Amino acid sequence: MLTNDQIKKANQHYVLQPWSKQAKRNPKIITDSEGIYFWDENNKKFYDMNAQLVYANLGHKHPKIIEAFNQFKELEISAPGFASESKAKLAQKIVDLAPNNMAKVYFTTAGAEANEQALKMAKAITGGYKIFSRYRSYHGSTLGAGNLTGESRRLGSEPSPPGFVKFDMPYLYREYQNFEDEKALSAQYLTRLERQITSEGPDTIAALVIETIPGSNGVLLPPDGYIKGIEKLCRRYNIMMICDEVMSGFGRSGEWFACDHYDVQPDMITFAKGVTGGYLPLGGVILSKELSTYYDDNVFLSGATYSGHTLVCEIGNVAIESYEDMDLIKHVKQMEIVMNERLEKLRVYKYVGDVRNKGLFGAVELVKNKQTKEPLIEYGTAQGNDKQGYMRAFSQLLLDEGFYTFAHESHVLVTPPLTITAVEINAAMDLFENALVRFEEQFPKMNEGYPAHL
Amino acid sequence: MLTNDQIKKANQHYVLQPWSKQAKRNPKIITDSEGIYFWDENNKKFYDMNAQLVYANLGHKHPKIIEAFNQFKELEISAPGFASESKAKLAQKIVDLAPNNMAKVYFTTAGAEANEQALKMAKAITGGYKIFSRYRSYHGSTLGAGNLTGESRRLGSEPSPPGFVKFDMPYLYREYQNFEDEKALSAQYLTRLERQITSEGPDTIAALVIETIPGSNGVLLPPDGYIKGIEKLCRRYNIMMICDEVMSGFGRSGEWFACDHYDVQPDMITFAKGVTGGYLPLGGVILSKELSTYYDDNVFLSGATYSGHTLVCEIGNVAIESYEDMDLIKHVKQMEIVMNERLEKLRVYKYVGDVRNKGLFGAVELVKNKQTKEPLIEYGTAQGNDKQGYMRAFSQLLLDEGFYTFAHESHVLVTPPLTITAVEINAAMDLFENALVRFEEQFPKMNEGYPAHL
Ligand SMILES: Cc1ncc(COP(=O)(O)O)c(C=O)c1O
Ligand SMILES: Cc1ncc(COP(=O)(O)O)c(C=O)c1O
Repeated sequence: MLTNDQIKKANQHYVLQPWSKQAKRNPKIITDSEGIYFWDENNKKFYDMNAQLVYANLGHKHPKIIEAFNQFKELEISAPGFASESKAKLAQKIVDLAPNNMAKVYFTTAGAEANEQALKMAKAITGGYKIFSRYRSYHGSTLGAGNLTGESRRLGSEPSPPGFVKFDMPYLYREYQNFEDEKALSAQYLTRLERQITSEGPDTIAALVIETIPGSNGVLLPPDGYIKGIEKLCRRYNIMMICDEVMSGFGRSGEWFACDHYDVQPDMITFAKGVTGGYLPLGGVILSKELSTYYDDNVFLSGATYSGHTLVCEIGNVAIESYEDMDLIKHVKQMEIVMNERLEKLRVYKYVGDVRNKGLFGAVELVKNKQTKEPLIEYGTAQGNDKQGYMRAFSQLLLDEGFYTFAHESHVLVTPPLTITAVEINAAMDLFENALVRFEEQFPKMNEGYPAHL
Repeated sequence: MLTNDQIKKANQHYVLQPWSKQAKRNPKIITDSEGIYFWDENNKKFYDMNAQLVYANLGHKHPKIIEAFNQFKELEISAPGFASESKAKLAQKIVDLAPNNMAKVYFTTAGAEANEQALKMAKAITGGYKIFSRYRSYHGSTLGAGNLTGESRRLGSEPSPPGFVKFDMPYLYREYQNFEDEKALSAQYLTRLERQITSEGPDTIAALVIETIPGSNGVLLPPDGYIKGIEKLCRRYNIMMICDEVMSGFGRSGEWFACDHYDVQPDMITFAKGVTGGYLPLGGVILSKELSTYYDDNVFLSGATYSGHTLVCEIGNVAIESYEDMDLIKHVKQMEIVMNERLEKLRVYKYVGDVRNKGLFGAVELVKNKQTKEPLIEYGTAQGNDKQGYMRAFSQLLLDEGFYTFAHESHVLVTPPLTITAVEINAAMDLFENALVRFEEQFPKMNEGYPAHL
């Protein structure tokens, strides 16, 4: 056993940490956890309002998962070429939970790799090489997934290979006032997208990839008719529709998959995170019947050592059983209302520009000025950048209050474990309000314009 | 509990399997396993002479790993932003085992992603965008790793993004006879490589990536002076040297890393597979001191949800402790001799062109004709392709004998768990010889030329 100081020193010394300068960081240690809470090395208690990284959907130390690990007596591990019970059961279960047209699963160990594989399939099957994806979206940080990504985190994956085409998405909070209704906003974006598709040449386009509800970019809820409109365009031009549900999948939005809200049948759905409740790394691609049939007689020219790892799939099965035993989807629908009420209350605060949630997929967007909607920090400020001043200050206040979450650009996520209760939501949101009050005290005025660097 | 038939049906129906047409496959199930053995659904016993996919280095059902899972009582899971004991310990341990100049570890969940991240680092640090890698190498099947790959499995990742430049590598078996000694062979390849580097423009080149000993392409041992020569070229032209040790790392070749044999200090080493003995998916990049220092004050613009997952790292620690408790490196060095003796004996068989091994990293290369060295199947015959006739036939004979391994192109791997004993090696190689005898009986003559399709 290392002391906490030794752990910190060794981390600092030996571990390269994502999205940061290594010298400046001073990471916390989680020394205990339970349900929606964890404790750090100073024994301070936190509400885990990010479910770590939007994956601890079942909460911390879920007893069924502990039990499952403790029952690993047999440990049959087998390469992807073998059939296995845990892999077969999990694939079947996921297909059952997914939209009706879905038929097969290809397993990966992470979300980025799921997107990589979806792209490969789309290209192989359509013969196209272009991939449409959206600004304000995150899809991972390997070469393919990194260039799908449409925000500052993409920069680490550039220069971009040919064929990655970006399009813009509606942003209700910043645009709604200019439109008669949501449908009109959707229509404008869909018209422009169609123009872009025809300009690029539909035959060259393999796939269009969307985060059904963009997550880490601020839970940007799609306006009425938008997702259905995307599906129609994909059908019209024979483009594969791929929904990245790495974050939104597995109950986060109050359905098993966020695309369930919008009455669409994508060609592929990618998933990861929630599928194991974060207890082991697992991801994958769900393929439509049509695509599956294609691969009956065409070689799937891809693979990975740990595709469908038996022990990981076993934990996946236990996790999904737990979702079902706890009737989590229904619970999330109920909690959506509680969270929404609490989020709406935040609108009275000076620097709260917008709040939104679907299920327990929530975000608060901060602005310097409600009239101009100037974002709290300059848009496009990359992770780890020094210009994150105001946002860093607000995140620190949240932490001081014991509210742990993820901040990106000018918003913070409110994405607790799906097991959270109404009482816990209210308690956590009280902390959030405390932080807002202190934020206003700390910054009675904000510098207009840029830079936002403190 | 599903019956074996149900498992097979569900696999067939719901799981997309790597590198194959889905309709034709009829995968086995591993119903029991122990040490270097596993049993299939017909209760047939197999020597696992591929360690599944060259990862079950500790053998099946390793008691310490089972114990570790059974002691998961606490299950602290934490996002990459936190420090954790298991992550810190494992990173430190890996740095200690790696060449002297190594300083930090970035964790991934697979080998392909480790290579992806190494490429990103090399590009970010050097400002170059070209990546040199070799034909007859496999590096994974995401967009970046797939285009590093220099053999038929790359095809699923094409078209290739700009900047992926391939060079050729010495092939002792097929070329040695034309040279005075190994050094002369190396010198010729190094001269040509240098010419290629200067032709491409050294400043545009970020990294040169090699499998230190190419594994799945047939354990192609580098001739004397070759790897050291590569290092010198990298230093001369300021190019990052990246050793992909996903397969060769963690004792496979009789050292912790295969580059230890060649007195080189690469800038990065990528690893996966053996680090957990295959019990959970884990990979990573080991970075030199110089690179680590770079990231002290520069943002590492990349990340992944499951980087440094606490439970996975825990199993990594237990696995490495087991390597050390069993003194596996020393054991592999001893077993190298036993395996080499048995491989050498195969040279008398009609269709055995070459045998080679370093540690327990072994391969047998089959040919139609020893004089012409015509390969058993046409070179470049992609996985899952129908033209694999003769090779498929030989693989089937090995399986019939109870010798399980991996065949690619015209070679089969001999890469058992590192725990294998001399007695077991001898018993397994008896089976291999039986298969060779039957192969000659089955095919007293072979069609010259192509196609090799039966
Ligand atoms: C929508 C989305 N897609 C893909 C990813 C990448 O997944 P991973 O980090 O497992 O590679 C993420 C990670 O946050 C994500 O939110
Ligand atoms: C040398 C080498 N590099 C990379 C990989 C890819 O690793 P993974 O399958 O974990 O993505 C492999 C897999 O066999 C490999 O042998």
